[in-house]
Amino acid sequence: MTNPALIEELKTLVEPGKVLTDADSLNAFGKDWTKHYAPAPSAIVFPKSIEQVQAIVRWANQHKVALVPSGGRTGLSAGAVAANGEVVVSFDYMNQILAFNEYDRTAVCQPGVVTQQLQQFAEDKGLYYPVDFASAGSSQIGGNIGTNAGGIKVIRYGMTRNWVAGLKVVTGTGELLELNKDLIKNATGYDMRQLFIGAEGTLGFVVEATMRLDRAPKNLTAMVLGTPDFDSIMPVLHAFQNKLDLTAFEFFSDKALAKIMARGDVPAAFETDCPFYALLEFEATTEEVAEAALATFEHCVEQGWVLDGVMSQSEQQLQNLWKLREYISETISHWTPYKNDISVTVSQVPAFLKDIDAIVEANYPDFEVVWFGHIGDGNLHLNILKPEALSKDEFFAKCAIVNQWVFETVQKYNGSISAEHGVGMTKRDYLHYSRSEAEIAYMKAIKQVFDPNGIMNPGKIFA
Amino acid sequence: MTNPALIEELKTLVEPGKVLTDADSLNAFGKDWTKHYAPAPSAIVFPKSIEQVQAIVRWANQHKVALVPSGGRTGLSAGAVAANGEVVVSFDYMNQILAFNEYDRTAVCQPGVVTQQLQQFAEDKGLYYPVDFASAGSSQIGGNIGTNAGGIKVIRYGMTRNWVAGLKVVTGTGELLELNKDLIKNATGYDMRQLFIGAEGTLGFVVEATMRLDRAPKNLTAMVLGTPDFDSIMPVLHAFQNKLDLTAFEFFSDKALAKIMARGDVPAAFETDCPFYALLEFEATTEEVAEAALATFEHCVEQGWVLDGVMSQSEQQLQNLWKLREYISETISHWTPYKNDISVTVSQVPAFLKDIDAIVEANYPDFEVVWFGHIGDGNLHLNILKPEALSKDEFFAKCAIVNQWVFETVQKYNGSISAEHGVGMTKRDYLHYSRSEAEIAYMKAIKQVFDPNGIMNPGKIFA
Repeated sequence: MTNPALIEELKTLVEPGKVLTDADSLNAFGKDWTKHYAPAPSAIVFPKSIEQVQAIVRWANQHKVALVPSGGRTGLSAGAVAANGEVVVSFDYMNQILAFNEYDRTAVCQPGVVTQQLQQFAEDKGLYYPVDFASAGSSQIGGNIGTNAGGIKVIRYGMTRNWVAGLKVVTGTGELLELNKDLIKNATGYDMRQLFIGAEGTLGFVVEATMRLDRAPKNLTAMVLGTPDFDSIMPVLHAFQNKLDLTAFEFFSDKALAKIMARGDVPAAFETDCPFYALLEFEATTEEVAEAALATFEHCVEQGWVLDGVMSQSEQQLQNLWKLREYISETISHWTPYKNDISVTVSQVPAFLKDIDAIVEANYPDFEVVWFGHIGDGNLHLNILKPEALSKDEFFAKCAIVNQWVFETVQKYNGSISAEHGVGMTKRDYLHYSRSEAEIAYMKAIKQVFDPNGIMNPGKIFA
Repeated sequence: MTNPALIEELKTLVEPGKVLTDADSLNAFGKDWTKHYAPAPSAIVFPKSIEQVQAIVRWANQHKVALVPSGGRTGLSAGAVAANGEVVVSFDYMNQILAFNEYDRTAVCQPGVVTQQLQQFAEDKGLYYPVDFASAGSSQIGGNIGTNAGGIKVIRYGMTRNWVAGLKVVTGTGELLELNKDLIKNATGYDMRQLFIGAEGTLGFVVEATMRLDRAPKNLTAMVLGTPDFDSIMPVLHAFQNKLDLTAFEFFSDKALAKIMARGDVPAAFETDCPFYALLEFEATTEEVAEAALATFEHCVEQGWVLDGVMSQSEQQLQNLWKLREYISETISHWTPYKNDISVTVSQVPAFLKDIDAIVEANYPDFEVVWFGHIGDGNLHLNILKPEALSKDEFFAKCAIVNQWVFETVQKYNGSISAEHGVGMTKRDYLHYSRSEAEIAYMKAIKQVFDPNGIMNPGKIFA
């Protein structure tokens, strides 16, 4: 724990009342959605300006105090957990959109701006912020940048990385860098902005970000298609991608759908039972586009790749179809699932998925495996539900073994052990399955450059 | 110069005849398109495999020999010039497309693959490689990645960076890194792939790149619009961007057009003389899109932003309209132009351009300023033609002063002194106009991490 005298000094760097040390605050701000680690920060500090962030980092640097950046605390890899007496730097009071430029289509955001706040802001301006995911209502832009957040529209719009025009960061020595200055074209040496995106706060803290906005999508239309097997999903993706600019291509298994249907509050897409379902979305900008989508659907049925399907005819139906996919995570949380967020190249998804299924089936035939994810970008969410008969402890002990198999299979397929949730503490010890020894050594050397005293979110990504 | 005994040792690392030291080769491979620096390499080596590149770098590391990577040598910033006895590593014999995956839409390229070769390859597969620029016929993928090449379709497709799915690089110690493994989503720590993109070979050499391809554009259609002044171009851009997904938005001045018309081999777009012209392009996927384009054109005329215009009705007319823009650089080369490649945010282009015009006009009223560029992404190409009466030496002496003014103005507008050509040697001494002291210090520290002996393209980006 940090020396109480130092905490008193910290209080002088921010506004009165902006350092909290009460048990409730320490508990609330010390954790994220993972809940694997007991929160144990020394204090929570709330800066209100870039200068205050710099002062905090300089203070931490001087006294070798570890800092943990804190956004919406919706992380799923314990990247923003403070379990070792760190001081948490919360950006809750740096939550304003400072500027908007309609010609550049940019919004200058403080790090604590909530994702949905930026989405709404864009909508009010007739524009669109396209990075979207389940926790958009509480996740913050600074955290999104720290983990290079992805979500459900990546196939069309890419990750958060694509939308960061410029970045102000405070490095581990308290220096302020203004990276890229919001330019589209800038060939003046290393693009260090890119290093800080996805660095989980281990190189420095994002203190301001200029985010790009896009034109608003027109008449978004979704299709849900049932397929006779997983292999059929790939030619369906291929056929639609050749004809339409897809904004999403998601999938889920019959087991996932069954859980959604059991809720009773989501209408079924159609009657036919299928082992797998694809949900795709596109802009039906004209009659011709909708016709092309239907023609492709018919082609897929003729080829035997699709058994049944439906296309949304209204905004309401669009929302209902999306619920089939978006409610999965929340719905299955009831079964205390083992979760893993992994990716391989799109073309390897079917073989990879079969390998994992076979391993789990052979070893734990009583485990119920629920697959869903962003198949258009190779990102699979593997979920295994706890059998009623097993205790939590027994289940998680068995899952630790499953973990090993999953990561070995990921490595075999040259995939990623963390597609979009980040490494944090949860996957730190498995990093070598996706990154070579040499890569990890270079990453550590880069951290040394920006954070020589190792005070910026230590213990995350690597030990 | 490198010790001849070392060159003999170098010869043992590659195939027979793959080290050249004759004067013609040294001259040809020691320079790029800038021609400001006299080429003076010690030798040219042509590896044929990744292992050979590693052996060359290890050899150079051991003997502290400076290496310069060489692609199509079309650079405009002396980034691949060997003027100080370096050994040039040419990738001319590593020029194959090694693999293609239709589901992932990726092509695995050796660094010496020519841009046009990849474009043609994509076309043969019914796909599209969208990074395009005047030197596509000889520039190589490795060089494109080294400079993060941009070009004429950035407004829609982004820079080369966006199309690099995975990268194999050999660092300054000869280590091979396989970065990102072609994944779309990969949140496993620092994305070092991004560091090597745009690093101009100063951190390591690209030895293989998996490039993404896109669906082929449909019915590309261009408009050329004449405007009464430069300020009108911005609302025109804004109006079209709100209605269409533009694939390009270029501009050129009447002075640029006059030079093209004087060639006699390009048909005029229309009769009306205008001080500025915009060339925009979009996919006329349906009748409705073409109608929306025409309606927007009419709206712009009504607003007084556009005086005259034309829309291409055929592939031939599309090509002819593009010639008005694409032939400018080659055509004005006759006047020994001073050239500068700069950028600001899109919204600041009009004010920036006026500032520069005023400075040049006030100080050198006899200078003819020719503006053109990629205005949709804020990238302006400033060209000043040499007055007949001035000698080359006098002209370039005056241009050195102009340079200073231009960079000071760039700095005032928070712009970039190199939008897409890179820093190389040409802009090395001006880097501080776009990057802070702290940024430059961090960049040097990053170079130290990957190239501890400073053998990888030394003297480029910074001294």
